[in-house]
Amino acid sequence: MPNVSQKGLSMPESPIRKLVPFAEAAKKKGATVIHLNIGQPDIKTPQVALDAVRNNTIEVLEYSRTEGSEGYREKLVAYYAKNDIHVTAGDIIVTTGGSEALSFVMGSIADSGDEIIIPEPFYANYNGFATAANVKVVPVVSHIDNNFALPPIEAFERLITPRTKAILICNPGNPTGYLYSKEEIKKLAHIVKEHDIFLVADEVYREFTYDDRKHYSVLQEEGLGNHAIIVDSVSKRYSMCGARIGCLVTQNKEVIKTALKFAQARLSPPTYAQLASEAALDTPQSYFDDVKTEYVARRDLLLQELEKIEGVKIGRPQGAFYCIAELPIEDADDFAQWLLEDFRVNNETVMVAPAAGFYATPGLGKNQIRIAYVLDQERLKRAVNILKEALKSYIG
Amino acid sequence: MPNVSQKGLSMPESPIRKLVPFAEAAKKKGATVIHLNIGQPDIKTPQVALDAVRNNTIEVLEYSRTEGSEGYREKLVAYYAKNDIHVTAGDIIVTTGGSEALSFVMGSIADSGDEIIIPEPFYANYNGFATAANVKVVPVVSHIDNNFALPPIEAFERLITPRTKAILICNPGNPTGYLYSKEEIKKLAHIVKEHDIFLVADEVYREFTYDDRKHYSVLQEEGLGNHAIIVDSVSKRYSMCGARIGCLVTQNKEVIKTALKFAQARLSPPTYAQLASEAALDTPQSYFDDVKTEYVARRDLLLQELEKIEGVKIGRPQGAFYCIAELPIEDADDFAQWLLEDFRVNNETVMVAPAAGFYATPGLGKNQIRIAYVLDQERLKRAVNILKEALKSYIG
Repeated sequence: MPNVSQKGLSMPESPIRKLVPFAEAAKKKGATVIHLNIGQPDIKTPQVALDAVRNNTIEVLEYSRTEGSEGYREKLVAYYAKNDIHVTAGDIIVTTGGSEALSFVMGSIADSGDEIIIPEPFYANYNGFATAANVKVVPVVSHIDNNFALPPIEAFERLITPRTKAILICNPGNPTGYLYSKEEIKKLAHIVKEHDIFLVADEVYREFTYDDRKHYSVLQEEGLGNHAIIVDSVSKRYSMCGARIGCLVTQNKEVIKTALKFAQARLSPPTYAQLASEAALDTPQSYFDDVKTEYVARRDLLLQELEKIEGVKIGRPQGAFYCIAELPIEDADDFAQWLLEDFRVNNETVMVAPAAGFYATPGLGKNQIRIAYVLDQERLKRAVNILKEALKSYIG
Repeated sequence: MPNVSQKGLSMPESPIRKLVPFAEAAKKKGATVIHLNIGQPDIKTPQVALDAVRNNTIEVLEYSRTEGSEGYREKLVAYYAKNDIHVTAGDIIVTTGGSEALSFVMGSIADSGDEIIIPEPFYANYNGFATAANVKVVPVVSHIDNNFALPPIEAFERLITPRTKAILICNPGNPTGYLYSKEEIKKLAHIVKEHDIFLVADEVYREFTYDDRKHYSVLQEEGLGNHAIIVDSVSKRYSMCGARIGCLVTQNKEVIKTALKFAQARLSPPTYAQLASEAALDTPQSYFDDVKTEYVARRDLLLQELEKIEGVKIGRPQGAFYCIAELPIEDADDFAQWLLEDFRVNNETVMVAPAAGFYATPGLGKNQIRIAYVLDQERLKRAVNILKEALKSYIG
């Protein structure tokens, strides 16, 4: 039997994948599992987007343009302008999810063995895209004690080598919920210009910022043009995860030209989903206001309830819909599995994402979990109560 | 300004990309351009597929399962069984187009510097996926004189090295239209088993076989199970190129397990397009009969008209909807550009795909073009007439 590749063997598995069989077993035994582990919002997709697909008049479902339909990219230009990001349609390549944008970016800026510095904990799939592209992820640790703020710029400085091609941030952050300030972005801008490397920002949670904080994009930073690349997606913005539409945005013409070659190989992004995504740009502001109000209420409830649990430390989220909690335990993997196998309150249990999978440095985050607050407040409260009772029982 | 990657610089451009500006210029000047260069069928998408999307009741457009929805994969099992390919849902990973299936396969079976042998001319985007995965394409020449039949197995034998991981075929072939016989598949099966490598078959044109020839899949070949991988797609089968749904199929559990990790990183294939693809499996047989009748008529017309042109040699297609023609010229790139820039019949011209881009060996195919017969017979006839007149004028 022929062997699979070494690369394939070293591709990381999703941090929650190994818990899935335990969740399924729990459900089979009749238990209800409340999912705090996934970033799939329960929010309704905007009606305009749903309608655009239901009312489509396509008769021959053709390839779209490789770089995304002209109409959609033109409307994206207006969307970005409203967010004080000034680009042209030629600066945008529509991709199959933010995922593909990340793959194209890594392929376009890094060769085998090149390095990308990423503050950890970070979105676990960055590891997958890096492994697939033979790129080395170099982590720089951020800490729960200051809500996972940007590590000191000297920490980045120390890690830069001739192989370093970029710093990659997620802003606001998955899994931290941290929103980088304008000052932090300026510090990053300075260092990438000094070392002539890229600053790649995954800004898919741009709209989800709380406490009157405003998102500051890398493409708002003057003079950063050729260094800045945005990775974006409609998945969370419009609760359209299943569309699989994202984009990459940069004023760097060489990057666009190069990424377009990767895009050409896969022909085009999905057509129906582009219809939905283009229409979604007409979503009324009231939709976002309502969604934000709901997420803030959930976050506040989550923090308030978590704070009642002795020994739990929280990274206070200022954006997105994730929160890292440090638990008074040794091994969150074991705890998460035990929750699914052995612990119930009124025949309910919770599934959490052990945070170690979001760190690249071995050993870090072992006593942390990521909670996604994408479920209604009533269930969220019940879920945290289960966690509280579980911790008592687990520690005892 | 930071540099793009060497890999990015070496990513091939689509063979027709450089002609696109000339086609656009021709149109701007008021000329009609008949496209013989693209594989976008004009055939209507099956009504069941269109209806499934129009009548969808999705309210929250969620991620689907990473490996594709359970319902779709179960129905694919029945589809394959009807084609005498016996697999389970667990042998199938639904992908974003056949393109993504190819990327997953290359990543799963080959490391940087590993080699994949491909009969040339071949689908040009194989080059792109190989470059992206740092895999070396090793071409083995097939010839127009025998319609691009399988090269002698000794030619493969000579090219196999310790780095060879697979032989990749497209059956029926793009750009050749050649359909490998059962005997040819058996020869390939023998050699891949002997050398313990994979046989990857791009079978996206499975249904398009003519002259009472039957497609023989690598997964029909007994004893090849762990060596055989199918790359498949709905794009051409149901004229649904814009769906971006494909799949990889293999009984090799290690390959499935590995490819699934690549799939997890990108979360899921597009949801709407899966609805369309699942429904498309209910397309009545009469649809395929009609489509096949139409393609056979187009092929016959194309060959008949091409044969009238002096000095033109043709690889007779037995499947798919492409044909390679060798022209009595030196440089098809120059000829194709000249057609768009300087030649008109009644203000019409044609765009063809120079075939050199389908060969990996430099210098091969320079006097060949690929013609896609995906347009109605009336225009097809006009297009070939334009070619005939153009050749006279170009040579003269």
